[in-house]
This record gives sequence, structure tokens and C-alpha cells, in this order.
Amino acid sequence: MDIIKPRTLSGFMELLPGKQAQFERMLTILRNTYASYGFAALDTPVIEDAQILLAKGGGETEKQIYRFQKGDSDLALRFDLTVPLAKYVALHCNDLAFPFRRYQISKVYRGERAQRGRFREFYQADIDIIGDGKLDILNEAEIPAIIYKVFRGFGLSRFQIRVNNRKILSGFYAMLGLSEKSGDIMRTVDKLDKIGPEKVKTILLEECGLTEAQAEEILKFIAIRGTNAQVIAALEGYLGRSEIFDLGVEELKAVTANLAAFGVPEDNFAVDLTIARGLDYYTGTVYETTLLDHPEIGSVCSGGRYDNLAGYYIEKQLPGVGISIGLTRLFYVLDEQGLLNPELPSAPADALVLPMTAEVGPAIALAEQLRTGGLRVQLYGEQKKFKQKMAYADKLGVPFAVLLGEDEIAEGKCSVKNMRTGEQVKLTPAEAVEYILSALAAGNGPVILEK
Amino acid sequence: MDIIKPRTLSGFMELLPGKQAQFERMLTILRNTYASYGFAALDTPVIEDAQILLAKGGGETEKQIYRFQKGDSDLALRFDLTVPLAKYVALHCNDLAFPFRRYQISKVYRGERAQRGRFREFYQADIDIIGDGKLDILNEAEIPAIIYKVFRGFGLSRFQIRVNNRKILSGFYAMLGLSEKSGDIMRTVDKLDKIGPEKVKTILLEECGLTEAQAEEILKFIAIRGTNAQVIAALEGYLGRSEIFDLGVEELKAVTANLAAFGVPEDNFAVDLTIARGLDYYTGTVYETTLLDHPEIGSVCSGGRYDNLAGYYIEKQLPGVGISIGLTRLFYVLDEQGLLNPELPSAPADALVLPMTAEVGPAIALAEQLRTGGLRVQLYGEQKKFKQKMAYADKLGVPFAVLLGEDEIAEGKCSVKNMRTGEQVKLTPAEAVEYILSALAAGNGPVILEK
Repeated sequence: MDIIKPRTLSGFMELLPGKQAQFERMLTILRNTYASYGFAALDTPVIEDAQILLAKGGGETEKQIYRFQKGDSDLALRFDLTVPLAKYVALHCNDLAFPFRRYQISKVYRGERAQRGRFREFYQADIDIIGDGKLDILNEAEIPAIIYKVFRGFGLSRFQIRVNNRKILSGFYAMLGLSEKSGDIMRTVDKLDKIGPEKVKTILLEECGLTEAQAEEILKFIAIRGTNAQVIAALEGYLGRSEIFDLGVEELKAVTANLAAFGVPEDNFAVDLTIARGLDYYTGTVYETTLLDHPEIGSVCSGGRYDNLAGYYIEKQLPGVGISIGLTRLFYVLDEQGLLNPELPSAPADALVLPMTAEVGPAIALAEQLRTGGLRVQLYGEQKKFKQKMAYADKLGVPFAVLLGEDEIAEGKCSVKNMRTGEQVKLTPAEAVEYILSALAAGNGPVILEK
Repeated sequence: MDIIKPRTLSGFMELLPGKQAQFERMLTILRNTYASYGFAALDTPVIEDAQILLAKGGGETEKQIYRFQKGDSDLALRFDLTVPLAKYVALHCNDLAFPFRRYQISKVYRGERAQRGRFREFYQADIDIIGDGKLDILNEAEIPAIIYKVFRGFGLSRFQIRVNNRKILSGFYAMLGLSEKSGDIMRTVDKLDKIGPEKVKTILLEECGLTEAQAEEILKFIAIRGTNAQVIAALEGYLGRSEIFDLGVEELKAVTANLAAFGVPEDNFAVDLTIARGLDYYTGTVYETTLLDHPEIGSVCSGGRYDNLAGYYIEKQLPGVGISIGLTRLFYVLDEQGLLNPELPSAPADALVLPMTAEVGPAIALAEQLRTGGLRVQLYGEQKKFKQKMAYADKLGVPFAVLLGEDEIAEGKCSVKNMRTGEQVKLTPAEAVEYILSALAAGNGPVILEK
């Protein structure tokens, strides 16, 4: 038979079991946290009608999308979870209770040029709250509060959710008589971190055609820094000149006040007037999240408030607010930076039961007892020498081996061996469960260990 | 703006939130049960190199596969989880501990002709145990024992895992001098349930070219019925005439004995000599699982023992045993038959906190306290009339509403309203957690309610 060399496509993450166990922990934290805030799990198809996915159209998306024919169907793989959500809500809006809160943690597909740390298949972990016509400002604080909980759940504390409001930006540009140029200006200002204020000014003058005074006003505005209270105080100096600006400041004040009520420490969120988010889609609060020790990664979690989720599919006005974690990339970066907690057990089992007799009935029964007690238990059924059995336990990385020989069977006990310390004790099955569970609880730590 | 009518492609399951909650429960039971037996979670790409997925080739697969070009890559969507497993094990075999036990619960894609209850995108929930060169017979009992646990976990009891051994079949045909025709014969015998013994005999005589005596022997053989002990006793009457047959009987005896040791009641597994499984792939124990009250559905969980998992990708001999649940179809059928437990809460939250004051800080804090107590809590932040708030609670189907007005805030309490009975009590947040958790525990039942 001809052998075909096995490979996994570049740009597709495929983890070894130990790493996958870490990734699964993050998935579980995400699911549990999202669910604890009353979000419904949602699962939409990977394949959709290409016309529907591309309703908005636009450059990068059209280039990157995986699109193909099957029979006479024009199909494509989803490139995010927002467009399928829009389709879902438009299709099922009569059956949904609004505000509709859903989470979806699923893979999306973008045929980008492959490069280190860029993925063509990656998980997004999204939450959105969709209103029917209206949506209270409270939701715009709850969304980042949930993200705070998720990141803390991962074990992170050195992160910052940066918040701004698009109404403040567009109101401010209106004050300067620059409403029509606000898109170009925001895209330029967005580069501030990368190219610095001097270059930003040059572009504003030469490419956007601003006057010296206008450019200076903008640079002064985006240079506003300080505590959230200080930034808001500075913003209040501009009040009374633009209705939309004033509304934005009011919203920002509500969001920061409510974030504090949700228990998010000031260290973990900051008003940042330079954040605009590229998409025209957003109309109010916008978010980006950075790891303070790794600013080079950019935002690991972004989103914002929008006015019209599903305008391509339905007349109904569906405003919403949502946020998305690029999970595959985040995991890749955390792993690269050595931040995944190496102390967490990576084995698929808490205990490996090793029968030491030819008759395996007692070992089967013992393994079932340990499982009933709440342990993940693997039964090793291979007829191998003791040394080979222990070599398997080592390679698996299982924290405990449970040996069952003639003596143990006669006594109604089993020998529990701590694979790290080598310590071995003879216990009843019930005692063994207690012993192993308490040792595992002691070793429990966060998924991410900050250095 | 032009409106594009939203739709979901036919053959793709997309559930409303309440149904999705039921599906998620089944996923959780599957993950927990598979993990409790020491299987590692695995996640492989949906897209693979088409050459690799199609290494085996063959009619139906080539026709049904979703295959497309991107740039100069020849890509395809996985049509099962076994081929990606073979690739994975071949690619990573030096990093894996053998026997390698993995579970994968993921979507697969087959562009079949769409029809009711047939899906083009569907979940498979697979477990496999892969040995390096050898694999003990014990694993062939553990696999169906785990499936027993899963189905019981779902709430099912009226199901039967039917077990046979391909060595018994091929040994038996060898006794009759029919080894070369055994493939055709097995495919014919496989139709016994559908077409009856008379038609089977006709095909054996006319199409397979058997003699009257040979056909009679086969019909007599596959008519062997009774308890597992009776069937095995009947098989022992054929011993000594074919080595491979004798080995198969020995294996079958070991599997049935061990299944009993795993605690699987005889009602839930049966030796059934008519089961062959179509694929040449299987070489020993084979499984099918039927719902006793719904035989028309066919097998909902099938698999078996194979000798060579990854022969297309690697020289290494990798025998294994595995089984697969076609989860999407199973869920669809259970739902159609009205077997999903309607008593289980379908709401995304256990409690809906309704602030009755303009200031929402106390409600935010209360919701956080209830979450810390372990509840899934949704905070309703919309400024609506009381009646509209309760209408939302009703539509969401949430079991408890928690009202927080001036009085409650002053007393440090909240009003917990049972949405089903209408009963309302004023409790501290800690008492509210206790009260709601105990009510939820009392209402806890299986996902599936047999009639």
C-alpha cells in the first residue's frame, strides 16, 4: 500500500493531548462564566449560503472567505460569529425573548496568508445582547464586567479593558466641523500607538486636509490621560457644544459607574479616548482589551455597541452590544510566552488502575468505584510487565497509580502510588477517593500563571 | 438597503435556545462520561488536505465529501472523525502514550441528498483506544460499557448494545469453504431484519451462488437466539473446525464476561450473530446499538475492533477499538418522538433579577451575590413597566424572578417569585440561593424521559 505522508494544514491549530487539556480548561471557564450571566448557548452551522454570509460584502472578507460550490449551491464557511448571529436573530426573531443574550464559542475560517501566530481556523468566544428596538446602557457595562470575570477565571490580573464611546468621538469631530472626515481621522488616530503623535499630525494635515488648529485640537484631545475620573472631568470641559458628544459622555459615565458596581477594579478598566475600532458598525461604547505585560499582542478581546445587527436580513431595528475573544490566538500567545500553568495535571486521568492479577474483574470493579467517587480513572488492561506498566503511567503523566494485586484484593484495599513523590499507601476504595481528591484539590491552580 | 431573506441551509441543524439547552446537556454528559474513563479530549481541524482525507477513497465518500480549492490547496471537510484520528496518531505517534485513548465530539460533513432526519452537518461523539502493535481484549468490553453509561446518563434504559465478532463470522464461512464469498454473504445476511430469511436465502442461492446445504447452514447459524449464555453454548457446538472461529468465540466470551464485570445488565447487551457491520475495516468485536422501542431508527451507536488504524499514513501497526454516536440524528429522533424531558428548565438562567428602582447598583450587587452562590443569573436592565418585565420572564421561561425594590433594599432582602406557582417570599441573598438551588435540585431529571 502506498503511504501518504500525514500532515496538518498550516494555519490550523492541532494540539497534543496535554495542551488540549489546558485549552479545554479555558473553554470550560468561558462556558461557565458566560452561562452564569444568563447567556444561552448557541450553535450555528459552519457552512452557510455564501450570499447570506457576504451580504455586507467588502474587501478583506471576500478575499479571505472559504467559498465553494456543491451541486448548484453557493456555499461558504463562516468567517465570524456575528454574521451568523444576525441571520439567526432575523430568522427566529418571533421565537426569541428580547433582550436576547447568547454566547457562542465556535471555530471560524479565514484564508489569510499563513504566518506564525495567525490562524485560518480559530475559535471565537462571543457574547452579545440584542434588544428589540431599544437596549439599556446597563448592558454596555455588563459585557466588559463578564470579560473581567473570564480573564480573572483564567488566572490573569495584569490586563486592562479599555473603553471609549464612538458618540464622544463623532461629537467631538462635529464640534470641529469635521464630521465628514471623521472616518479618515479615526483611522489615523487609531495608529497613534504605532506611529506616534508627530506622524499622526502629519497625516491629519497632509492626507486628511485638516488645518493646523484642527490637528492641534485633535492631538490635545487624544492626549487626555489620567484616572477614569480625571479623563471624564476633562471631557466635561467640552460639554454643551454637541448633543451627540454630550450623550456620549453621559453614556461613558454610566458605563464606568456600573463597571465599578459590577466589582471591576479601576486597575482593570480604563477610559481611553484613542480607541475607535475600525468598523463603522459600532455606534456607542467600544472595547479593547490588552495584556499589560504584552502590549505587542494588541487587543485580545474587542467589541462594542451597535445600532443595527441584522439590517441586511430584516427591517426590524435590532441594536446590541457584544464582545469577542480570539481564543486560539490568545492560547497560542500565552503558550509561546510560557504563561500556561505547568503545574496543572495534563493527563487525561486522575488515576491509572493497574491490575496485578490475570483476572481483571476486581480491577474493573475498583475502577468503577473510583469513578463513582468522582475521579477520572483509566484502567490499564494490557498484559505487560510491571516496569512497562509504570513506564506507561509516567508517559501519560497521571498523578496517581492504583495497584491491585492478590494481597490488596484479599484485604479489600488497593495500593495508591503518588507518581511524583513515589509515596505508596494501602487504602480502601473509599479512602483512595478521598486521598486522591484532596491531593488534586491542593494542586489546583489557575490555567495561566503570570510571571 | 436591499434585504436578503435569511435562511439556514437544508440538512443543517440550528436549534432554538431551549432545544439547544437540551442538546448542551447531552454534550456535557458525553464529555463527563468519556473523561471519567480517562479519555483525552481531542480537537482536529474541520478542513484537511483532500488527498489525506481521501487516502482510502471509495464511492460514497468521494461523492459526498465537501471538497474545494483555495489558492493552490486541494482542501476538504472531514466526513468522519476516524480518518482525522488516523492522521493525528500517525503524525504524533512519538508524542503519544499507548494505548492512546481519545474522545472527540465534533461536527462532520457529508453532502448527502437532503431528506427529513438526514443531516449534512452533524455531530459525532467518538471514543477510540489505539494500541501500539497489540491491544488487550479488555478494551473491547470497556468501550460498550462506557456507551452503556452514556445512554443511562441520558436517561435511557430501553436500549440494547448488540455485540458480535467478525472472526466468528469469517471462521464460520471458512468452515463452509466460503471464505472468498464471505463479504457478499455478510452484506446479504446484514439485510435479514429488513427482508426476512426467505429472501436472504434466495439471494444466497441465486446471487452468491451457494448450494442449498450451504444456505441452510447459514440460515440455521444466524437463527441462533437466546440469552448470551445460550448463544455462546450454541457457538461452542462449532468449536474445533476453524482456528479463527475458535479465537472469535474465545474473544466473545471474554467480552461478555467483562461487560458483566463492568456492571452492564444483561438486558442492555446481547450477542447477535447477524451483526456484521459493512466495513472491511473491522476484524474482531463489532457493536450496534438499538433503541428497543424504536427499532425503525436503526443503530444509533456503532463501531468495533480494527487491526490497522493508520495504514494509509504510516508503516506502524496500530490496532484499535472504537465506537461512534451519531448525536445530531439521535437528538433529532428523540425530539421527534417527544422523548426529550419537557420538565427540564430550558431557560438560560435560573433566576432573573428585576431592579424596581431607577438606581441599579443594588441589583447589580445582588445578581453578583446570587452568581457567587452558584446560580445562573440574568440581570434585566431595561427601563420597562412591571408588566413588561414579567412578560419577558415568562417568555424566557426562567423558573425564578428576583425582585429588588426600595423595601427589599432597606431590609437587605429580595423577593423571590416562583414563576410557575406564583409563590413569592422575601429572603436574604444567601437564603435566596439556598431556596432556588433546592427547588432546582428537586426538579432535576434525566434529559430523556422514556414513555
